[in-house]
Amino acid sequence: MIILNGGSSSGKTGMVRCLQSLLPDPWLAFGVDGFVDALPARMRDGDGGIEFGEDGSVSVGADFRALEAAWLAGIAAMARAGARIVVDEVFLGGAASQERWREALDGVDVLWVGVRCDSTVAAGREIARGDRTPGMAAQQAEIVHEGVVYDLEVDTSRTESLECARAIAAHVR
Amino acid sequence: MIILNGGSSSGKTGMVRCLQSLLPDPWLAFGVDGFVDALPARMRDGDGGIEFGEDGSVSVGADFRALEAAWLAGIAAMARAGARIVVDEVFLGGAASQERWREALDGVDVLWVGVRCDSTVAAGREIARGDRTPGMAAQQAEIVHEGVVYDLEVDTSRTESLECARAIAAHVR
Amino acid sequence: MIILNGGSSSGKTGMVRCLQSLLPDPWLAFGVDGFVDALPARMRDGDGGIEFGEDGSVSVGADFRALEAAWLAGIAAMARAGARIVVDEVFLGGAASQERWREALDGVDVLWVGVRCDSTVAAGREIARGDRTPGMAAQQAEIVHEGVVYDLEVDTSRTESLECARAIAAHVR
Amino acid sequence: MIILNGGSSSGKTGMVRCLQSLLPDPWLAFGVDGFVDALPARMRDGDGGIEFGEDGSVSVGADFRALEAAWLAGIAAMARAGARIVVDEVFLGGAASQERWREALDGVDVLWVGVRCDSTVAAGREIARGDRTPGMAAQQAEIVHEGVVYDLEVDTSRTESLECARAIAAHVR
Repeated sequence: MIILNGGSSSGKTGMVRCLQSLLPDPWLAFGVDGFVDALPARMRDGDGGIEFGEDGSVSVGADFRALEAAWLAGIAAMARAGARIVVDEVFLGGAASQERWREALDGVDVLWVGVRCDSTVAAGREIARGDRTPGMAAQQAEIVHEGVVYDLEVDTSRTESLECARAIAAHVR
Repeated sequence: MIILNGGSSSGKTGMVRCLQSLLPDPWLAFGVDGFVDALPARMRDGDGGIEFGEDGSVSVGADFRALEAAWLAGIAAMARAGARIVVDEVFLGGAASQERWREALDGVDVLWVGVRCDSTVAAGREIARGDRTPGMAAQQAEIVHEGVVYDLEVDTSRTESLECARAIAAHVR
Repeated sequence: MIILNGGSSSGKTGMVRCLQSLLPDPWLAFGVDGFVDALPARMRDGDGGIEFGEDGSVSVGADFRALEAAWLAGIAAMARAGARIVVDEVFLGGAASQERWREALDGVDVLWVGVRCDSTVAAGREIARGDRTPGMAAQQAEIVHEGVVYDLEVDTSRTESLECARAIAAHVR
Repeated sequence: MIILNGGSSSGKTGMVRCLQSLLPDPWLAFGVDGFVDALPARMRDGDGGIEFGEDGSVSVGADFRALEAAWLAGIAAMARAGARIVVDEVFLGGAASQERWREALDGVDVLWVGVRCDSTVAAGREIARGDRTPGMAAQQAEIVHEGVVYDLEVDTSRTESLECARAIAAHVR
């Protein structure tokens, strides 16, 4: 299993597609965006779920945490059932977020990858993609990596997604 | 857990959103479309994955089945971990598809819902949505229900999604 | 040229796709949603542009009106250049909105179509589609038709989009 | 008016969003992708329309050309009606494509911008975005610029979209 962690607009999703293309075995791709889409609409607007502030801040509530724990257990079960899985995540809680995954993935072999991107570059790409609240990229660029331990780090500020994916693929047995 | 089974363009996804809106507890929504999106791009074009024929036929290969089994195990694990989950599915194999879910969901309480839609009506909605290969709706309208046993059936041919969802919600404890 | 006018979630876009499928000649489809997407992001959040209230209300400013006038002139020019065009619109201003189009389309042959949908039905479909602010459908269901004169009216409350499109196509020379 | 011309996956659309963000006046964004979406579905699969080959090649037919001419006339009319417009285009015909726009835009002040991207870099980004036929980027990288005359050229191979947009914005009066 591979877990990519990085801030908004750091290029994780594109990197996942490149990884799926490069790796000869079939890998399933899941991510926190897909989990958020699975929530009831009202939970994407606060209400114990996830709240996107106008300044790009993101906060989550108790219901979000409870469902997220079940989602982690499910992804872990897919891996234990033999599926190769690559997850793209945003560790808003830094080390605490990693710890949640670590517990869920007990016994599963994981390659932890940090996806870095200069705050300014990510903020520019946020404008270019046009579907994110301005400010998210800058707010998350550093905090998602706080205290997180990686097997490998890539930086998309000046390296293409496909190149980063090649570096990751080289670590996959 | 709730499993909605119906052919392409029978209105399952909209019904899921209505269910999430109606039910007071938070329910996570997953579906076979999300699973297909999680596959490597090359597996959505044959290659042991899923193949969409020009006539609207759909066939899946061995790699698809292997990953699908892991996905089922994962969804089951999420349910066992306490999440309320509603799944929208297309049982291309009819009773055999239901049997796969039944085995994966051993011990989980499931409400099986058949989503019917007249073949002609579904084919018309397929044209209106514009993002599906013409022919899928008609090809799947009947076969997905063959031999499948339901707790409840709804028919979207002449009943709105929200009304169907109300009928389903009434069966949820 | 065909102009379909109706409130949010009344089924206009699907009906346009059905019309394009039914009509033997090629028809280009444009709509107010496409125009809104063409605006700078900041104008989709007020700032003289278009503002979506939390209750589903929609209001537009002076910059929106100025650019909209140019857009209408452009669509009219496409029609005069020989393209068959079907537009789906939301006449927030009722008769005044129709008058704006009428002036822009001076000399162009237009089939005016009213797309009706019961407020309650449209509100249910708004929940099912999940990508509109709840309340828009109900707020717009009646007001968009106030004082508007049609060649033909269809009602999607109990008639499928494809059937409505057939009725419209029968009026196209 | 600004016309950006570049091959598939060269980064035009993101650059347009950056331009709309940077420029103090409101600019409307249109592009050839939007025009293709306006066509009847059957014309996006050959039938005198546009055909996407499995190798990434793209060819267009007589009906496409006829409707495209009307579309160009319409965009020109929007500009003449006072709207500031930025168009992102793929000049499959190189100089001949530019000539078509030049004729349609007679009397309109145009800033012609070439958007370059190394063929290999664009091909990598094509994999990362995952929604284009592999091969399109490489096939178009050079040919779209053949014989085209620009006021300004930018290269996204090693420069961010926002930086490229700044260079373009500096040329806008």
